[in-house]
Amino acid sequence: MPIRLDSASTDFASQFKAFLAMKREVAADIEAATRAIVDDVAARGDAALLEATAKFDRLKLEASGLRVSAAEVDAAVKLCDPDTIDALKFARDRIEFFHRRQLPKDDRFTDPLGVELGWRWSAIEAVGLYVPGGTAAYPSSVLMNAIPAKVAGVERVVMVVPSPDGKLAPLVLAAAQLGGVTEIYRVGGAQAVAALAYGTATIAPVSKIVGPGNAYVAAAKRLVFGRVGIDMIAGPSEVVVVADNTGNPDWIAADLLAQAEHDANAQSILITDDAALAAEVERAVAAQLKTLSREKIARASWDAFGAIIKVARLDEAVGLADAIAAEHLEIITADPEAFAAKIRNAGAIFLGAHTPEAIGDYVGGSNHVLPTARSARFSSGLGVLDFMKRTSILKCGPEQLAALGPAAMTLGKAEGLDAHARSVGLRLNRR
Amino acid sequence: MPIRLDSASTDFASQFKAFLAMKREVAADIEAATRAIVDDVAARGDAALLEATAKFDRLKLEASGLRVSAAEVDAAVKLCDPDTIDALKFARDRIEFFHRRQLPKDDRFTDPLGVELGWRWSAIEAVGLYVPGGTAAYPSSVLMNAIPAKVAGVERVVMVVPSPDGKLAPLVLAAAQLGGVTEIYRVGGAQAVAALAYGTATIAPVSKIVGPGNAYVAAAKRLVFGRVGIDMIAGPSEVVVVADNTGNPDWIAADLLAQAEHDANAQSILITDDAALAAEVERAVAAQLKTLSREKIARASWDAFGAIIKVARLDEAVGLADAIAAEHLEIITADPEAFAAKIRNAGAIFLGAHTPEAIGDYVGGSNHVLPTARSARFSSGLGVLDFMKRTSILKCGPEQLAALGPAAMTLGKAEGLDAHARSVGLRLNRR
Repeated sequence: MPIRLDSASTDFASQFKAFLAMKREVAADIEAATRAIVDDVAARGDAALLEATAKFDRLKLEASGLRVSAAEVDAAVKLCDPDTIDALKFARDRIEFFHRRQLPKDDRFTDPLGVELGWRWSAIEAVGLYVPGGTAAYPSSVLMNAIPAKVAGVERVVMVVPSPDGKLAPLVLAAAQLGGVTEIYRVGGAQAVAALAYGTATIAPVSKIVGPGNAYVAAAKRLVFGRVGIDMIAGPSEVVVVADNTGNPDWIAADLLAQAEHDANAQSILITDDAALAAEVERAVAAQLKTLSREKIARASWDAFGAIIKVARLDEAVGLADAIAAEHLEIITADPEAFAAKIRNAGAIFLGAHTPEAIGDYVGGSNHVLPTARSARFSSGLGVLDFMKRTSILKCGPEQLAALGPAAMTLGKAEGLDAHARSVGLRLNRR
Repeated sequence: MPIRLDSASTDFASQFKAFLAMKREVAADIEAATRAIVDDVAARGDAALLEATAKFDRLKLEASGLRVSAAEVDAAVKLCDPDTIDALKFARDRIEFFHRRQLPKDDRFTDPLGVELGWRWSAIEAVGLYVPGGTAAYPSSVLMNAIPAKVAGVERVVMVVPSPDGKLAPLVLAAAQLGGVTEIYRVGGAQAVAALAYGTATIAPVSKIVGPGNAYVAAAKRLVFGRVGIDMIAGPSEVVVVADNTGNPDWIAADLLAQAEHDANAQSILITDDAALAAEVERAVAAQLKTLSREKIARASWDAFGAIIKVARLDEAVGLADAIAAEHLEIITADPEAFAAKIRNAGAIFLGAHTPEAIGDYVGGSNHVLPTARSARFSSGLGVLDFMKRTSILKCGPEQLAALGPAAMTLGKAEGLDAHARSVGLRLNRR
């Protein structure tokens, strides 16, 4: 049974507040265990990495076996269904097209005093891409992480993927090849994150680590943050569907379940001004649930976190959607553009009845790595800028220094920083 | 005595590697203590915040006294030297001018299939600005953090600043007023970070926290990361000066000391191809040190971490500077632009003899919050984008869904996500 809220209830405000505060993940106390693994790899390199891999993935390797060879990748690609490879290529081309437009421009300009200012963007030299292993293989995520890095101009895109009992998903290797990954290592968990951050004899260190992982991976990323850059710590995924009486209940139910089937902690929320639609969607969800191969996961998510919020007028949904700050926001109304224009917090917006979120997961072209768990209030989906950095540039001649210098000296002295003031004053022949 | 390296030494490579790996900060084990403070404020709000403030700042307050009133700020401004206020205004206008150029553009476009794509930037609604208190007052840092937020369009810019024994630096309050800070609270430490992240009855929560602080502040930011956004964890500051025989030894010495006087853990590095210049700079540093009010700090930094690296040819300095990835890079050579064009990793570049780094600290207009401790390899200085987030937009009609849908269904099925495939298939009348 989903959670049901009605904005007409007298205690709706407090109910909605409790709904927002609801935790979908139990924080396990794994930091000490994670730190031990990370410290061990930092100290002992390959030896520690190999021991951890033997322990956690039940895979005994020599250092020479860590890297997945080009021949292995080629062989894996041959095992894949050709239609799926074609779909991955289609996705790759669209993702690349979209992300090329995100390449930032350098700037260089001269202000009225003649001071030259500006900045220059450059790619990070080496990034690590964490890819989860085991049963669930998500080649689309490999593309979504690797392609922005390649578009940015990153030279080394280093993928790590655990191979429990020695198994690697062929489609994941195929996606790595299509996405331009330059090195692949069959390691995972906190030990893989540590290897990327500190480097080992076999794996040269990278400067930034991106990609989703389990709680140990997330904890390891948090620990190495600062030494290397990291992307957001990914939480459970969610969708908000805002619909009016134009919505098709079966389609909406399918969209809610597409979110729910990801993970028992995923969350699917319908906000509507139409009570009849709400009831029909709920019935359609119940009917469709029974036919899903991942019924158990989807049902757990829908029963624990699914929600239907009835509003009196669609305008009320704007504030609710902004407060939820959903990773994915579908707008299935008579005028989706008008509604979208009022929205401030969302990872991605899907406009109209013919834009199911699944299109964005695979082939829309925009990135499917999006801020979860309300973090769209302060962060963005993965993009080209995440793989670049900006260097600012400042240039004065003697005249410009004469114009700027006195104020700089005043502030340096006010902050008690004599040498700052002197570094200007010496050049101006004054103290 | 600074560290002396010479690229002509047979073991230069290993010496430089050790130099890069040198730690400038001792990591204190304060995480448990920090977590206790953060958890307490999260659980008990104002009561915990007031207790921590009484304990750490020796300041007993009621909740109603947490906020610094507009009248207090006005009174503080009147205490400030008018020349310093004028210099702050000059700095503010220049910082605003520079950062306005960083405002990103939205994009919306239609691809060859008719799919509408794009993204939209919006400001974060509320950000917290941590400002260190006590003896060192850095009004310039208040401007550097607040102005990009205001330019981005952030509505609530909430400053927290500890007032040990009840003392607040008037210039810090003046800078807050000039920079457009909207709320100020006299709290600091991990408890202030927790209050900003979780909110209390008095302090409404923010979505992102920026600004430098001590080890407790840094640890608290790391703990709340994910619940809110944070900026980089700031480490000790550094400058690299690359100079040839055109360099003025006194000016270069002053620049090295301007870095060293910040902090005993700061680092000042000269890289030059001119042995005579190196010797003269070293003598000038020794002479100037004696005259600094912060001699003790600057000397500790220079003796422990200061370095002079002699190279055979200036070209060698490019790779060394990139490996150091300095927060600040001054290029004092015959052709600074040519050298700068080859540099990849630096927070900010200062071109030519008349651009001392202190200009960038105060009145250049570019931001002085820059990536430290080699993090310029993967991150940028603070800017307008740090206070905004991007929402991607996707819109298909029936024809576009027909064009994209089959590939999305193929990939959904390949990933074992039936409901993903169905959400597309239902709309296309196929499973």
